[in-house]
Amino acid sequence: MAFRSIEWRDDEGVLRLLDQTRLPDELVYLDLADVDAICAAIRAMTVRGAPAIGVAAAYGMVVAARRSTAPNLDTLRQELGEAEALLRASRPTAVNLFWALDRMARVVAGAADADALKAALLAEARAIEGEDIAVNRAIARHAMAIVPHKATFFHHCNTGSLATVDLGTALGVIRTAHESGREVFAYLDETRPRLQGAKLSSWELLQYGVPHAVVVDGAAPHIMRTRGVDLAVVGCDRVAANGDTANKIGTYALALAARDNGVPFYVCAPTSTIDLATPSGDAIAIEDRDAHEITHINGVQVTPDGAGVYNPAFDVTPARLITGIITEYGIAEPPYEVSLARIFAEKKKG
Amino acid sequence: MAFRSIEWRDDEGVLRLLDQTRLPDELVYLDLADVDAICAAIRAMTVRGAPAIGVAAAYGMVVAARRSTAPNLDTLRQELGEAEALLRASRPTAVNLFWALDRMARVVAGAADADALKAALLAEARAIEGEDIAVNRAIARHAMAIVPHKATFFHHCNTGSLATVDLGTALGVIRTAHESGREVFAYLDETRPRLQGAKLSSWELLQYGVPHAVVVDGAAPHIMRTRGVDLAVVGCDRVAANGDTANKIGTYALALAARDNGVPFYVCAPTSTIDLATPSGDAIAIEDRDAHEITHINGVQVTPDGAGVYNPAFDVTPARLITGIITEYGIAEPPYEVSLARIFAEKKKG
Repeated sequence: MAFRSIEWRDDEGVLRLLDQTRLPDELVYLDLADVDAICAAIRAMTVRGAPAIGVAAAYGMVVAARRSTAPNLDTLRQELGEAEALLRASRPTAVNLFWALDRMARVVAGAADADALKAALLAEARAIEGEDIAVNRAIARHAMAIVPHKATFFHHCNTGSLATVDLGTALGVIRTAHESGREVFAYLDETRPRLQGAKLSSWELLQYGVPHAVVVDGAAPHIMRTRGVDLAVVGCDRVAANGDTANKIGTYALALAARDNGVPFYVCAPTSTIDLATPSGDAIAIEDRDAHEITHINGVQVTPDGAGVYNPAFDVTPARLITGIITEYGIAEPPYEVSLARIFAEKKKG
Repeated sequence: MAFRSIEWRDDEGVLRLLDQTRLPDELVYLDLADVDAICAAIRAMTVRGAPAIGVAAAYGMVVAARRSTAPNLDTLRQELGEAEALLRASRPTAVNLFWALDRMARVVAGAADADALKAALLAEARAIEGEDIAVNRAIARHAMAIVPHKATFFHHCNTGSLATVDLGTALGVIRTAHESGREVFAYLDETRPRLQGAKLSSWELLQYGVPHAVVVDGAAPHIMRTRGVDLAVVGCDRVAANGDTANKIGTYALALAARDNGVPFYVCAPTSTIDLATPSGDAIAIEDRDAHEITHINGVQVTPDGAGVYNPAFDVTPARLITGIITEYGIAEPPYEVSLARIFAEKKKG
């Protein structure tokens, strides 16, 4: 792998992030040494993708502990509570952020002394990081059961190594299918407003040698109708207990295109992204982002002065449009209330 | 009206076009005095919108006649045949181009001498131009029957005064609803790759004082689901006899969003855009445009070097997704084979 999206540099005590806002033009890494900088990086989408955000937030807690000069355990816990609150407020929709911080908070609550706490936080962040890679490999392995030998994919946003620690979720499925010797082609939604498909997924697939075509977001139903697409695969920011799936704006539209053309539509979801405490998509907070993401592209204004703009960053794809949810424990199928609960029961068993 | 998309300047013998590729930054007019320049303007989308293209092509024939030094009627007819062939090849999907050139060709065939031919061509082009305004007004008048007092619209691409001689089709409906005292709000698909919604429709609605929000193309189903939209209105480049409708890429996706959310979806179609000789959408040629429209935005490259790209300019919305087709003779409803034939019968009666 020629790049790493996220790396803990223990000697320097910094979180090194590949600045995804500079791709594909430049490969620039940022070393972040305090919680405010990590929150800013999450907000600005220097680091993005639900799994990568979760890992970045976990290391945010490590950074806070490392920099602390608290004289005792109680003060350290108080400082870490403040850091956790800052990180929790950085983005609202992806549940991995909260899931990772919950794990880190349990470590904070359970430690016996300050040194043990710091060591345990680092171990937990490393565990979250390592699990992400293993989980993505398991998702790709399960997915191979539904990928034909000659497979034309449709894909939205970026869900590859950039969005995770490594391999990725939906893009990891495409890459794994390619590396397994299947004849793969991928249509990549450019994914306005931030063009993660055009800038990031295309860049990743060029690294891996996967043939692909970037297309505008509105083209999916036409292409499915006229060119033959075998399956659509997407990632997710939060899956509710009933299977409703929050993901990058435009995912719901892609699912409608797939349904109208008989194309199977799969969500790739590490169980860390599945939130059984959220009953349905109606309960998921959708982040509205700055109008500037729509009015300006690469710093150049495209809309006239005074134009109205509305910029929701995510949408909710209704469970009824989803063929299957591919987790590290296998593929859940409708009804999702039953199949997701079964997967979590299996996870609990270990 | 502060601008004119298209204007025949008889004294100078030039076709004056508002250069739509420079909007919203600059209001620049181009005076075109030969057929090659008019073909290039159509190809480059200096002039765009099916009705405006038809009028521009008609005046292209006038320009060719005006510049001709042919010594007799036969030579003039031969030159005009060559001009017609060039204009026909400028863009493939919108039928108004062929419809307007068919009308002009009938004039060429019917004239008694060269001077009469030149005069008759000018008269026919002026007729096509004048009819466009009257047709659009009639479409807007018929549409008011289905627009509620408080109306939130969804709109794709640009279908306003810029895309026609004046008023426009779908955007003309929105403008007319606003001017009739209704409480109007319009969501405007930005319409990648050329951003006609963000650049042109937003600019037009600012001129008319219509409240609106530019949104990314993938956002329609989410917005319809969460914000309340009363109806979607679009223009068209060609309507087949069965109601299948070719229009800007992304229209099919908008129709799917509307269907899934119970939002009525209307196509605004001058009968010049309805082609009863095309049985269904499968018979409509879809123009593929240059990859550069996707890889570069305002001259700045967004995709990595070597990225694959596919750029179909139009799609076909299946008739089953269309609530009604609003023509200057009234609103056609399914089954369109019957209702469109009835409208043409009425047109023939005059």
